[in-house]
Amino acid sequence: MVITPSSPSPQRPLDKESIRLVAKAEKVDPTVLARHVGGGSVVIMRRGDRCVGIGRGLRIKVNVNIGTSNVRSVPHEEVKKAVVAEHCGADTISDLSMGRDVEETRRLIFSHTSVPITTVPVYQAAAEQGIEGMDARDILDTVRRQAREGVSSMVVHCITRDILEACRREGRVLGLVSKGGSITAAFMLHHGCQNPFIEHFQEILGIMRSCGIVLSLGNSVRSGCIGDGWDQAQDEELHTNLALAEEAHRAGVQVIIEGAGGHIRYDRIASTIRRYRDASRFPLFVAGPLPTDIALGLDHIAGCVGASAAGAAGADYLCCITPAEHLGLPTPAQVREGLLAWRIAAHIGDLARLGLDMQDRKMAEKRALMDRKGQISLALDPEAARTSGADEETCTMCGDFCALRLMRRYLKGPR
Amino acid sequence: MVITPSSPSPQRPLDKESIRLVAKAEKVDPTVLARHVGGGSVVIMRRGDRCVGIGRGLRIKVNVNIGTSNVRSVPHEEVKKAVVAEHCGADTISDLSMGRDVEETRRLIFSHTSVPITTVPVYQAAAEQGIEGMDARDILDTVRRQAREGVSSMVVHCITRDILEACRREGRVLGLVSKGGSITAAFMLHHGCQNPFIEHFQEILGIMRSCGIVLSLGNSVRSGCIGDGWDQAQDEELHTNLALAEEAHRAGVQVIIEGAGGHIRYDRIASTIRRYRDASRFPLFVAGPLPTDIALGLDHIAGCVGASAAGAAGADYLCCITPAEHLGLPTPAQVREGLLAWRIAAHIGDLARLGLDMQDRKMAEKRALMDRKGQISLALDPEAARTSGADEETCTMCGDFCALRLMRRYLKGPR
Repeated sequence: MVITPSSPSPQRPLDKESIRLVAKAEKVDPTVLARHVGGGSVVIMRRGDRCVGIGRGLRIKVNVNIGTSNVRSVPHEEVKKAVVAEHCGADTISDLSMGRDVEETRRLIFSHTSVPITTVPVYQAAAEQGIEGMDARDILDTVRRQAREGVSSMVVHCITRDILEACRREGRVLGLVSKGGSITAAFMLHHGCQNPFIEHFQEILGIMRSCGIVLSLGNSVRSGCIGDGWDQAQDEELHTNLALAEEAHRAGVQVIIEGAGGHIRYDRIASTIRRYRDASRFPLFVAGPLPTDIALGLDHIAGCVGASAAGAAGADYLCCITPAEHLGLPTPAQVREGLLAWRIAAHIGDLARLGLDMQDRKMAEKRALMDRKGQISLALDPEAARTSGADEETCTMCGDFCALRLMRRYLKGPR
Repeated sequence: MVITPSSPSPQRPLDKESIRLVAKAEKVDPTVLARHVGGGSVVIMRRGDRCVGIGRGLRIKVNVNIGTSNVRSVPHEEVKKAVVAEHCGADTISDLSMGRDVEETRRLIFSHTSVPITTVPVYQAAAEQGIEGMDARDILDTVRRQAREGVSSMVVHCITRDILEACRREGRVLGLVSKGGSITAAFMLHHGCQNPFIEHFQEILGIMRSCGIVLSLGNSVRSGCIGDGWDQAQDEELHTNLALAEEAHRAGVQVIIEGAGGHIRYDRIASTIRRYRDASRFPLFVAGPLPTDIALGLDHIAGCVGASAAGAAGADYLCCITPAEHLGLPTPAQVREGLLAWRIAAHIGDLARLGLDMQDRKMAEKRALMDRKGQISLALDPEAARTSGADEETCTMCGDFCALRLMRRYLKGPR
């Protein structure tokens, strides 16, 4: 993959060329795609000449979270993660840095990548001024600064006093587990104010529109454990986000709704996705969901199960989780592990939802021919295939008793 | 885990004590369990004092395949895999050895483990005499010898000429991919005979009954790629196995039906499981299914998605796949990876099917308390949790901006 980093600069407004590029990449009719973009069921995230379509009728996309924290701030490690993510097929990267010199960290990430970058402005504002030190103007200034840097998408958490109250009333075991949601809520509670993103929504829409940025409405009240099921708080958030999404759409801003993330029992994932799908035509961004709480250290595998179910049921855009989830910031190798698990989930969802089985068909043909190299080259991640195969020349599993060999010899199989 | 290896000796017939032990381990009513065992919807695999219940109303169980092949035959490696499997929570182990001195390899495996061991007699017969050299008597002798060794369960592949013909007629891309199924079919074709297991079914039932062995009816015609969907061959096999299972049950032999394995598109897994569940009350053993063909090197992750869907839809017993699937014999580390993925799948299925969320609830409580050590000790695999957490003392993900911390401070959360 050749990476042509684009230097930070604001995005252009959406144009016909972006639609043409996405239609070509996705092998869909550009007229239909343009209609979906116009109607809000597809967004196109752009960075320079790179266009990533997300939503109705398109392949499921995968986002990778990276970024420093205030207890571990090593910018070059985050750059390494960004490079690994792009190399291993991430469609987008979210820089969630909250450590030292957030802007310099992001500048480095920009200069080493070419995929669209998403930010959560309240993170940077809180990191720089503190929840108690910042005011609504600081938050809006951060939105403007990040827009000028050329980010492709921004997440804002539109939690309200009512949603917060509903969340408390439910007696959740784990309350609020969204970082952006809790920072925003803490800001509201400390300053005794309403949600700054809702209060200044028109101003935010103006920035998004003029810079061609996709607005992502965060999932503040996702459940933190499978015991905390769907509740009034989640219902209110869905409807608040939906109303704001309509407002954004009317204002000419591309918008994504984030939901159905967190921890959800497996048998409830599809119905949770359907709640969103039935209520909203906007692209659905899902972080997780984890169908169990106990896969600590292996949450990328449990998460792959949840993400596959979510994708098959209608999620458009999946945010991957690494083996370090619930434990700490991931290493670059863990970012790779998480991303590969999510690319599997996205593909499983694409197969189930769109029947996109071309590569599977080719793989099956190579298997029928017992073409080992051909299989490795068609693997979702050839490097993983090579590593797991221990560089052996032939399969050692069945030897002379390989079913395919026996079939050729005795059953006069198709090959 | 303390392992008390039992020396090879035939199993005792099923007794009340076995039912009591399983009922206690599974926290179910022994009277109900006895009724399910009597009706055939639960089997109990035994080895010495260890009893593993499989079927209706019980936790999903996980089997690990190990064993040499004729191109890689290193018995002590297989012993290492067996030890790793038992240590990491395998409920049963299948020894599929076909390399040098199969009996000595199995003797070593027996002496290092205590979980029930399953074999596929036709493997050993073919390894020792060759498909062309063996006859039905040799196969039956192998069944008898393995019974005397004390195996807990045996797999026989009851593929018929009709099923084989149906399989060819379908124009499958990958034909027959079951090793046991293709060895049996090759034997039938070379010798121009019928299936030896069906021809001598009464004799086999006699051995199973007298030695208290669980009979497993193999899934010879599972699909080898997602393009090879449900077909006439699979339908005929299901009904053949079902008729044989009824016969076994009437003869007082505990029986499992293997099915819905191989490669199945995600959106078709639940309906495939339901075909079996609607037709059969016998415990359902599933190998896979893989919901995509292209996750080469990462098939344990893709397989975890398929196995979770199968478990949630009603599979009782899952056979794990390692990252080496389609590439070669796994290493002990790969056996561990595959098994952990399958234990996640089994737990996801148990949560969805039986609501068994005790450990998840405890984990959520520890999370609310930010008790890192408590979380690690409650993890499905504490070793994986420790490894992924890089032995750090605290979570480095969010630092001061941890949602739980913020909730405590500003939102006066439940803790």
